[in-house]
Amino acid sequence: MNEIVTNTIRRIQPLDQTAMQAARVRQDQLTKPAGSLGRLESLSVQIAGITGQNRPRLKQPTVVVMAGDHGVARQGVSAYPQEVTPQMVLNFLHGGAAINVLARHVGARVVVVDVGVATDMPPHPELIIKKVAKGTRDFTCAPAMTRDEAERAVQAGIDVVNTQIDAGADLVATGDMGIGNTTPSSAIVAAITGRTVAQVTGRGTGVDDAGLARKIATIEQALAYHRPDPCDGWDVLQKVGGFEIAGLAGVMIGAAARRVPVMIDGFISGAAALIACAIAPAAQPYLIAAHCSVEIGHRAMLEHLHLEPLLDFNLRLGEGTGAALGISLCIAACKILDEMATFGEAGVSDKTS
Amino acid sequence: MNEIVTNTIRRIQPLDQTAMQAARVRQDQLTKPAGSLGRLESLSVQIAGITGQNRPRLKQPTVVVMAGDHGVARQGVSAYPQEVTPQMVLNFLHGGAAINVLARHVGARVVVVDVGVATDMPPHPELIIKKVAKGTRDFTCAPAMTRDEAERAVQAGIDVVNTQIDAGADLVATGDMGIGNTTPSSAIVAAITGRTVAQVTGRGTGVDDAGLARKIATIEQALAYHRPDPCDGWDVLQKVGGFEIAGLAGVMIGAAARRVPVMIDGFISGAAALIACAIAPAAQPYLIAAHCSVEIGHRAMLEHLHLEPLLDFNLRLGEGTGAALGISLCIAACKILDEMATFGEAGVSDKTS
Repeated sequence: MNEIVTNTIRRIQPLDQTAMQAARVRQDQLTKPAGSLGRLESLSVQIAGITGQNRPRLKQPTVVVMAGDHGVARQGVSAYPQEVTPQMVLNFLHGGAAINVLARHVGARVVVVDVGVATDMPPHPELIIKKVAKGTRDFTCAPAMTRDEAERAVQAGIDVVNTQIDAGADLVATGDMGIGNTTPSSAIVAAITGRTVAQVTGRGTGVDDAGLARKIATIEQALAYHRPDPCDGWDVLQKVGGFEIAGLAGVMIGAAARRVPVMIDGFISGAAALIACAIAPAAQPYLIAAHCSVEIGHRAMLEHLHLEPLLDFNLRLGEGTGAALGISLCIAACKILDEMATFGEAGVSDKTS
Repeated sequence: MNEIVTNTIRRIQPLDQTAMQAARVRQDQLTKPAGSLGRLESLSVQIAGITGQNRPRLKQPTVVVMAGDHGVARQGVSAYPQEVTPQMVLNFLHGGAAINVLARHVGARVVVVDVGVATDMPPHPELIIKKVAKGTRDFTCAPAMTRDEAERAVQAGIDVVNTQIDAGADLVATGDMGIGNTTPSSAIVAAITGRTVAQVTGRGTGVDDAGLARKIATIEQALAYHRPDPCDGWDVLQKVGGFEIAGLAGVMIGAAARRVPVMIDGFISGAAALIACAIAPAAQPYLIAAHCSVEIGHRAMLEHLHLEPLLDFNLRLGEGTGAALGISLCIAACKILDEMATFGEAGVSDKTS
């Protein structure tokens, strides 16, 4: 296997139990009843364990948006034409998309990566080109990508996240763009969790009943044809995956190897997390699920990954929009741990019992 | 009744349907599948209706923390001694409490009001004194307050919120401090919703099993003694309420009368919302529930008020901490509506169908 990918996976360490214990002890000294900030407290302890810092301070959150196209889109599985992928990439670069608005709101940078858009993007100083191919092959009749392409796409994610971390990123969020990409994501969750295709396939950007039936039939046909090995993440990725999904799996693995927390977004990021944890199980504790998507297969993903989402906001956009909201909650959790006064400092009486 | 309170209630208008419709139309023109931002979209429409603005911009969120003491605390219903109320007020003023940390994080001001602390607070330039009395009476043997005190406490909230809105506050969040105040809150929710006391009484800051049994018995005894009229918010407030609860009800009514959205926090803010909507039903559409508390009666409150919480974070601190997190989500919702590019502006193809 690709050496960079192998070495990155090998570098992922367990969470730092000493830092987690120090965070727990401090939480119980802060001026509030012990445990009364619930999820904010547990989140701060997880981030202490991820970063290895007793009082982590997150200063430079970064949303990595990976874009790719899908051969299977020709089967009529999306409500939008494929030209929307590059159009939306331009929208990201010009700052007009939802992810730009929400990232600005939470003080995060947006990094846009072409890992497999079907057309050549016009050059732009802010666009990172890591194009593995001009879209995947239609997986109803061929593997979506070769094994080599799968590894190069994962490596692209590792490269991008390493560059961002070298530049100061200390919290990474995942986002996606790719017309048709709920179809490979449903295929991945069905393959890995063993649920039926119908149980994990939704309307994506909004296909009608006929479109949904076509989408389910398309995925069932592909899984029957390829029979991906549910225990082999590379096999699933190569046969029914997507380049942005592979790239985001690389981002997760790369961030985990550097002890940087990863905020995962919705259904496509969830598919990438399934792949990441299949090829690198040690990455799981580094993941934080931002929200539970409307897309019906998302809950099955989160259960398989043992992740509890922060928000349930009926989102189904992708781009990293839910993850951006999650960024603000993670920073809030760390500030509680770091900035609150203790009972002693504030001269407040502790519990009588 | 107190003329200021009466006039304020009378000024509350229904939401602005024209602004809501304009917001809905714009949401469908933005570069995303229609409806794909779920709760962020519905929240933006509600805030358009509250403010009467097609694209509301929230620039000056303000958390109003009302503090008061409770005669019933002498029954041993809290895990903390009453001296913690003024100690925590000082902690708020010095910026070391959880609400200070979270308000700073979301760019909100914190306004602290003594509406009924049992001791005299040392003067502080940031402390607003609206003390109605030095704590309520122990409601196991007397009404918590007189009708006149109840009206003055509600008016205090109206006065405070009017001053804040005059100074630019455009989103108001409610917070509370008062040792023992889950006890009157449970009494209020039992009285108004008709649930049994045991169904709506939890451990507050963390009483043990004996403390919980004592708390339930205390509330049952008080309700049997006073028999508050569930349809008369003033009667419930006066007999088993609290000054900070009354003050927060005033904040809600006052903000609604000025078309300012109100982010309500947890169990004590929820009790205040029950009182506010009992005495001014038109205030309900102006309320946004930030979160669902661990405190078991909170869900019953939210159901009675027809409010769907934004977060479910296992919080049980109060102070406005959950509401502070909600502030950021409301601002995000408004920015989506205001700042995203439309399909036309961005040159993105709309849905094929």
